[in-house]
Amino acid sequence: MKVIVLGAAAGGGFPQWNANSTMNRRAFAGDTALPRQTQCSLALSPGDDDDWLLLNCSPDIRQQIIDTKELQPYEELRSSPIKSVVLTNADVDAVAGLLSLRERQHLSIWSSDYILGAIEANPIFGVLDRSIVRLERIGTHGKFNPVPGLEVETFAAPGKPPLYLEHVHGIGAVVGATLGVRVTDARGKSIAFVPSCAEITPEVKRAIDGVDLLFFDGTMFTDDEMVASGEGSKTARRMGHMPMSGRGGSIETLREIKAGARYFIHINNSNLVLDRTSAQRRAVEAAGWKIAQDGMRIEL
Amino acid sequence: MKVIVLGAAAGGGFPQWNANSTMNRRAFAGDTALPRQTQCSLALSPGDDDDWLLLNCSPDIRQQIIDTKELQPYEELRSSPIKSVVLTNADVDAVAGLLSLRERQHLSIWSSDYILGAIEANPIFGVLDRSIVRLERIGTHGKFNPVPGLEVETFAAPGKPPLYLEHVHGIGAVVGATLGVRVTDARGKSIAFVPSCAEITPEVKRAIDGVDLLFFDGTMFTDDEMVASGEGSKTARRMGHMPMSGRGGSIETLREIKAGARYFIHINNSNLVLDRTSAQRRAVEAAGWKIAQDGMRIEL
Repeated sequence: MKVIVLGAAAGGGFPQWNANSTMNRRAFAGDTALPRQTQCSLALSPGDDDDWLLLNCSPDIRQQIIDTKELQPYEELRSSPIKSVVLTNADVDAVAGLLSLRERQHLSIWSSDYILGAIEANPIFGVLDRSIVRLERIGTHGKFNPVPGLEVETFAAPGKPPLYLEHVHGIGAVVGATLGVRVTDARGKSIAFVPSCAEITPEVKRAIDGVDLLFFDGTMFTDDEMVASGEGSKTARRMGHMPMSGRGGSIETLREIKAGARYFIHINNSNLVLDRTSAQRRAVEAAGWKIAQDGMRIEL
Repeated sequence: MKVIVLGAAAGGGFPQWNANSTMNRRAFAGDTALPRQTQCSLALSPGDDDDWLLLNCSPDIRQQIIDTKELQPYEELRSSPIKSVVLTNADVDAVAGLLSLRERQHLSIWSSDYILGAIEANPIFGVLDRSIVRLERIGTHGKFNPVPGLEVETFAAPGKPPLYLEHVHGIGAVVGATLGVRVTDARGKSIAFVPSCAEITPEVKRAIDGVDLLFFDGTMFTDDEMVASGEGSKTARRMGHMPMSGRGGSIETLREIKAGARYFIHINNSNLVLDRTSAQRRAVEAAGWKIAQDGMRIEL
């Protein structure tokens, strides 16, 4: 299996359009210690380069395709190696890129009833011509092959409805609002992708235990970092994410599971691990984790 | 007035994610004769650099801000020099970037009942918190000041509803579905922006006559170029655009109006003028027109 990190940042990317903290200012200025990151998405291929599966489709997808030769069209007048998309939630940073995958291209989009329903409620997604773009409802616990040679299993990752539906569905647990994904190839190699996770339940642990490659929710380093810095009024957990550090954080809680390699992904622009020279970055790396970065390629 | 071309391409940009024509392949490969273009949008300032107005907000806005220092935040922890957006139609390439202007930032968005209604019908645009983002309905013939020092007048530009509403509203003329914009500063300097125009009516001529700077619909060079090349089944006019060339094309029809400088914008990836060495490019330039390009800055 081939894995490409298309984007490693949380919603808004890094830097974020209206963020003026020291870290964001340095990223706007092109400081190489804080490389820019587009919004979170992975591309997976069984290894043949003909068929690619996207996990989430961020608003930055057009730029990500231009930066990723493997995803560019290479046959006929209109084509794409991108054959399928699996969505783990319905937030803007996970789904808005679908609007850029228009122009009459065959595609299948796989997700829960809740997430696909949230998308279909918007007439603008009608640009995806339903005679050639299939929406595949997979339930919270699905098992399916979105491209030949890759089997995907979904599981419930505790989270919340997207921001724009909080006023309708509340911020508590809603069935199917956030999923985790485990992908296995024909040789048994596997990755897990859990970009939003408010709590590591026994189910989450079981689902990711033993993977060769783990991409886990790295939105914030501490639960209250945005409140403490004045950048926001919400804690990580209020936003549907658990912090990396501290008692009950993801580093501590996931110590007992096995994984070939551990990457944090979906990193918010407030998270000091984005600074390669920070103490937080060193602490994460000392604990055996890496920080995902746009353009990373990993072959399993 | 300061004018920055944020993006000069039509929907899909150049290259387009799934387009494999010779021109698109060369643009993917970075050929300098065919510079890449993001999707069509202008930024205007009365000259003080504190307040910027966007004309349309493309899916590429995050990348456009990163590439445009003038639009980056420079005060407090959260801020933006972008104060207002005027929308000329509701197609994905003109409005989807609004989803990236979230994160609790004050903003006002000005357009017709039709265009704002098309946006509001989508719950996902609820990420623009209506307690701080104002939608201002201006009618087809409005006159207003979206930022201090710039007066905007809108006028009817013949066009069609966005692609995703064609099945609801048909493809004929719909009141307010497409607008043209004329912007005048305190010194009387003026620009016109008409990225979609299926027919140059007497009203369109009157509205743009005498401007210092004209940005006009340059989607296609010939009406049937996509049909002829096999890239599509629709003519320019069927898509709501008039061709540049030929009898009744925009070059001929606009010969009789006055304009300080004429730029084509909203250039489709099928339009051979994107190749700086093409005969079509030379013909357009010989007729007194220029082709807009991402990053161009013009001061009036």
